[in-house]
Amino acid sequence: MYKENYPSKLLENAVDAIGMLPGIGKRSALRLALYLLRQPQENVHHFTAAVNSLRDEVRYCRVCRMISDNETCSICSDPSRDRRTICVVESVRDVMSIENTGQYHGLYHVLGGIISPINGVGPSDLTIRELVDRVSALCGSDAGAGGTDGDCTGTGESQPEVILALSGDVEGETTSFYIYRQISGFGVKVSSLARGLGFGDDLEYADELTLGRSIVNRQMFRPY
Amino acid sequence: MYKENYPSKLLENAVDAIGMLPGIGKRSALRLALYLLRQPQENVHHFTAAVNSLRDEVRYCRVCRMISDNETCSICSDPSRDRRTICVVESVRDVMSIENTGQYHGLYHVLGGIISPINGVGPSDLTIRELVDRVSALCGSDAGAGGTDGDCTGTGESQPEVILALSGDVEGETTSFYIYRQISGFGVKVSSLARGLGFGDDLEYADELTLGRSIVNRQMFRPY
Repeated sequence: MYKENYPSKLLENAVDAIGMLPGIGKRSALRLALYLLRQPQENVHHFTAAVNSLRDEVRYCRVCRMISDNETCSICSDPSRDRRTICVVESVRDVMSIENTGQYHGLYHVLGGIISPINGVGPSDLTIRELVDRVSALCGSDAGAGGTDGDCTGTGESQPEVILALSGDVEGETTSFYIYRQISGFGVKVSSLARGLGFGDDLEYADELTLGRSIVNRQMFRPY
Repeated sequence: MYKENYPSKLLENAVDAIGMLPGIGKRSALRLALYLLRQPQENVHHFTAAVNSLRDEVRYCRVCRMISDNETCSICSDPSRDRRTICVVESVRDVMSIENTGQYHGLYHVLGGIISPINGVGPSDLTIRELVDRVSALCGSDAGAGGTDGDCTGTGESQPEVILALSGDVEGETTSFYIYRQISGFGVKVSSLARGLGFGDDLEYADELTLGRSIVNRQMFRPY
């Protein structure tokens, strides 16, 4: 454990506070604190005001729970997006990552976490209830009343789709399965992300599970 | 350049502000911003208040310019320290580093920077004037009046010493030389840090300048 004798209580408090951030140890925190000390006072106030504003004034889209400056986020209020496809993700970061690919044109649903008994996170801590309501509304108000048979399948419109874009670990798979059980009764199409070798990956270094899935789920070769 | 489309202006502002910190890029800044967003509001306020307090309320020791909670720092007001030895350092961080070695029992003088024409830092931007005054007081008030001959040397007390503990680069050497010129007239002993191979260093990987100095300044072998 790295122990430091601080010449000032103010410095120690600031280092402790900065050191609470993830990935920033005591040494980095001290470096950042001394850096902030050398900056003009208004720059430091600007920094802390920006952080406070983020936490105090942030809003979440009432539809998809993405962070947003308005009641409805820019994605949910964009008329050009496919409103019959919902991509379920764990966090705000995931939405930004998928948006950056430019390959997805539907809507999102941010769970706000993942089912994890070891961390004390159960289904009721996430926005799964809201997701079920969205899927229900998408499939018509009578959805789910008829039992396990889907109601979406009979309509004239294209079948709605829910993409489960969660991590491939045990907690992600558990959450995906839980959500699948909740929404499969509506007859909505439920898909999940393709798993396989990444582009540029070397076969030699791929783990067996990934390589195995890549063979089983092989695709037709499409030359450009 | 990593470009991100932010779902919220508040988030973008916070990421920009956090990204101004040294060693924190846009990706890390986004990760930190989203982390802060997930924390309880009082934790975030505690964090920003600690940073603001540091910048707004910090004081500098009137003697050595070290940061301090009081008018005089804990080192300068410690009666057990050797008051006739002054270690000149660039920054607060250097004082903490030397204190951590437990090998030094004199006082300090924090320059608050280093002479660097390329960064627009001249001698008047540093606390060199204050250092000269301290050395002058240490050598008696008549010091410097008699010309270049030292005045300290004649007193009954041990000769005062100024240790120039600055970096070994060009700017550090320039600053050391400048200070030496300013204080050598008082007859004070002026030393600088030993340079040589670090403990555990491999000869094979030492640069020629360091290795050369290590040979020239070789010391008597002292078995424990």
